[in-house]
Amino acid sequence: MELQNARGTRDFPPEQAMARQKLVDTLKKVFELYGFNPLETPILEPYGVLSAKYAGGAEILKETFRLTDQGKRELGLRYDLTVPMCRYLAMNPNTRMPFKRYQAGEVFRDGPIKLARYRQFTQCDVDIVGVKGMAADAEIISIVQAVFEKLGMDAAIKINSRKVMNGLLEAAGVAKEKSEAAILSIDKLEKLGPEAVKKEMKDNKISENSIKAVTEIISIKGSNDAKLTKLKEDLKGSKEGMEGLAEIEALLSMLISTANVEFDISLARGLSYYTGTVFEVFLKDSEIKSAVAAGGRYDNMIGSFLGSKKEYPAVGIAFGLDVILDALKKQRAGGTESAKTAATAYVIPIKAPKEAAKVAQQLRKAGINTAVEMLDRGISKSLEYANAQGIPYAVFVGEQEVKQGKVKLRDMKTGKEELVAVEEAIKEIGKS
Amino acid sequence: MELQNARGTRDFPPEQAMARQKLVDTLKKVFELYGFNPLETPILEPYGVLSAKYAGGAEILKETFRLTDQGKRELGLRYDLTVPMCRYLAMNPNTRMPFKRYQAGEVFRDGPIKLARYRQFTQCDVDIVGVKGMAADAEIISIVQAVFEKLGMDAAIKINSRKVMNGLLEAAGVAKEKSEAAILSIDKLEKLGPEAVKKEMKDNKISENSIKAVTEIISIKGSNDAKLTKLKEDLKGSKEGMEGLAEIEALLSMLISTANVEFDISLARGLSYYTGTVFEVFLKDSEIKSAVAAGGRYDNMIGSFLGSKKEYPAVGIAFGLDVILDALKKQRAGGTESAKTAATAYVIPIKAPKEAAKVAQQLRKAGINTAVEMLDRGISKSLEYANAQGIPYAVFVGEQEVKQGKVKLRDMKTGKEELVAVEEAIKEIGKS
Repeated sequence: MELQNARGTRDFPPEQAMARQKLVDTLKKVFELYGFNPLETPILEPYGVLSAKYAGGAEILKETFRLTDQGKRELGLRYDLTVPMCRYLAMNPNTRMPFKRYQAGEVFRDGPIKLARYRQFTQCDVDIVGVKGMAADAEIISIVQAVFEKLGMDAAIKINSRKVMNGLLEAAGVAKEKSEAAILSIDKLEKLGPEAVKKEMKDNKISENSIKAVTEIISIKGSNDAKLTKLKEDLKGSKEGMEGLAEIEALLSMLISTANVEFDISLARGLSYYTGTVFEVFLKDSEIKSAVAAGGRYDNMIGSFLGSKKEYPAVGIAFGLDVILDALKKQRAGGTESAKTAATAYVIPIKAPKEAAKVAQQLRKAGINTAVEMLDRGISKSLEYANAQGIPYAVFVGEQEVKQGKVKLRDMKTGKEELVAVEEAIKEIGKS
Repeated sequence: MELQNARGTRDFPPEQAMARQKLVDTLKKVFELYGFNPLETPILEPYGVLSAKYAGGAEILKETFRLTDQGKRELGLRYDLTVPMCRYLAMNPNTRMPFKRYQAGEVFRDGPIKLARYRQFTQCDVDIVGVKGMAADAEIISIVQAVFEKLGMDAAIKINSRKVMNGLLEAAGVAKEKSEAAILSIDKLEKLGPEAVKKEMKDNKISENSIKAVTEIISIKGSNDAKLTKLKEDLKGSKEGMEGLAEIEALLSMLISTANVEFDISLARGLSYYTGTVFEVFLKDSEIKSAVAAGGRYDNMIGSFLGSKKEYPAVGIAFGLDVILDALKKQRAGGTESAKTAATAYVIPIKAPKEAAKVAQQLRKAGINTAVEMLDRGISKSLEYANAQGIPYAVFVGEQEVKQGKVKLRDMKTGKEELVAVEEAIKEIGKS
């Protein structure tokens, strides 16, 4: 028998599983503070849904796990949470708009295993469907700010608009049929540097003049306001560009704080389905260079997917659970350790199992996570276990202590022991 | 395109997803109160793990979804959470014992779709590995008591022991090779009644005398103590039976309350891997007749699975999420409605979007889940939306109100409106 994980999948032992749960809980809590509700869709989807024309596209289908059921129906494991949401909305046409949903769930991609690429990983999405105005985009940015504030992380939020990008290309004289390729090139600016981007555009037969104009515009420096003012000049010949600038301006005006929001004219985002604002979130002063969240507006996707004339404007963002966890781990390095167990107290019976069970029950009633020694190990072995598990308090329940109506409480860190009433032990443990 | 779910799978719209999350959170909270930690294993497993000799067995493999990855590796979707836990323990031989883990996760079975049988469903397991003594079994029972108390449900916990069952068959003169079949027959007592069970045993060529002896013993009525006393007489010829009785007695003595625990001599549990105690939990005075939780002791499974000589005694229980949710729904019928949204407040801007955003932010800072009207709908349409979503409070933020430093708070149930400061609104909403 192969005693191993399926390739590209991972077990999360307690220590890691707890950190993951905590992060997901934090995200959910923020989403709910903003009035978002959970939607749960299944992991198995009909392959026809996953391969629909306006779904993920050919690239992602190459990495889609396929299988059949006993009735020979073609199925697939979901590769994202957006396509299943589209199917749900199509099957539930009376869903009230705006539809604000979040979902944290496992997704699957049968791709090459590179560093930090897994075949099963968790996505955490939040989307608003049914709102055309920038109020929705502002709410998404506000959620990003709230999430990273809650996590104690300094985030830089970059925003741009596909409309601004298209306007820029129009103003620079890049032909419409070459704009998709040009956007893909500009998307690599951060990674490859300006020279490589210029070369790629040249290889794509974009004229010297156009390349010069594009690089000039995307290099504009200054405050958000300064960029907006300059671009309103540069793009005034492009209706789409001016619309995009108006949207960015409206979005920025709606935010309570714009301190960590940067209008980044070079931000492209590779995916073709974006129609308006795009966002990418990075951590400041962090070794983690990849985006910790990314998203944007995709006003056409749901409607086209459904073959419907009804408009389904939508905007959303996906948080990268793994990369945020990596960053939290690095942040913690040298600081407080992450919990190894949910238990705060370890009750050790000394020839008084029934009394020990009662004390454990009292602690739990007071909300203290309590484990009990169940192997009748001696004191030192029991303490060794509690210590290895990182449980902060041991509570000895012995015949002697019980006679006095007391327990012996041991602070595992300091080694200090004291004979106290159960109520006092609860107070002491509760303080920690 | 097929606009439908994969057969046997379900979407959980917000209302249902919230109820499910709440139940899972309640279960997790209780598990953690008892010092259990989460373990997360992947949904994809090597098929060799799922089909290992001591894993789920032939019946379940017929219902296992199979697939391959790009490297032609044979994979399967997990059909339970126990087998992956065994693989985890095998791969991590230095795991400290006792290992107390819980896991709530999706499992998959490609079986026939009958009422309330799904191809993707959620299991919620709690297990203790590494403890031979009844302290572990008592903890599992105690967890069951705590869970249903927390859920406000009146649960009846039936316990028995495979050892008692084997002793009973020995005492009744049923041949060893027929005992497995006899146990499967007895398992149907509740469902089919005593006559059908007798007939099945007769068809299996168990003698009239044995059948008479078996039915006499399993019909013993009375308190747990009375049953123990009587059985100690009846089974005194069977070493295994007496051992089982001693364990049941020890288990009962360790429980803080036995009020809802019944020693049920006829409780068999079909699965062959049980080696000691078995449990089934039912709801009293409920239309739901199926078990809401079930489990037992499986001392040989993990060790055999690993081909290891090291002993891995284990005991655990699985909670049936779907059936408990059904019961909670029936319990609620006529009572309070389940939440349709996480939002408690709906902020409606009246020509004051920026001020409304600030008020919303204040409410969220105070921990109130707050949605904001983003479609610029008029007052009546906004209220209709809030009402349909079941949001208890609407908060109007208008130019006039803002001038007075106030908002208009509307209780959606009573329709009462009052002009109050934001702090007062927070207090009022917080009370609900």
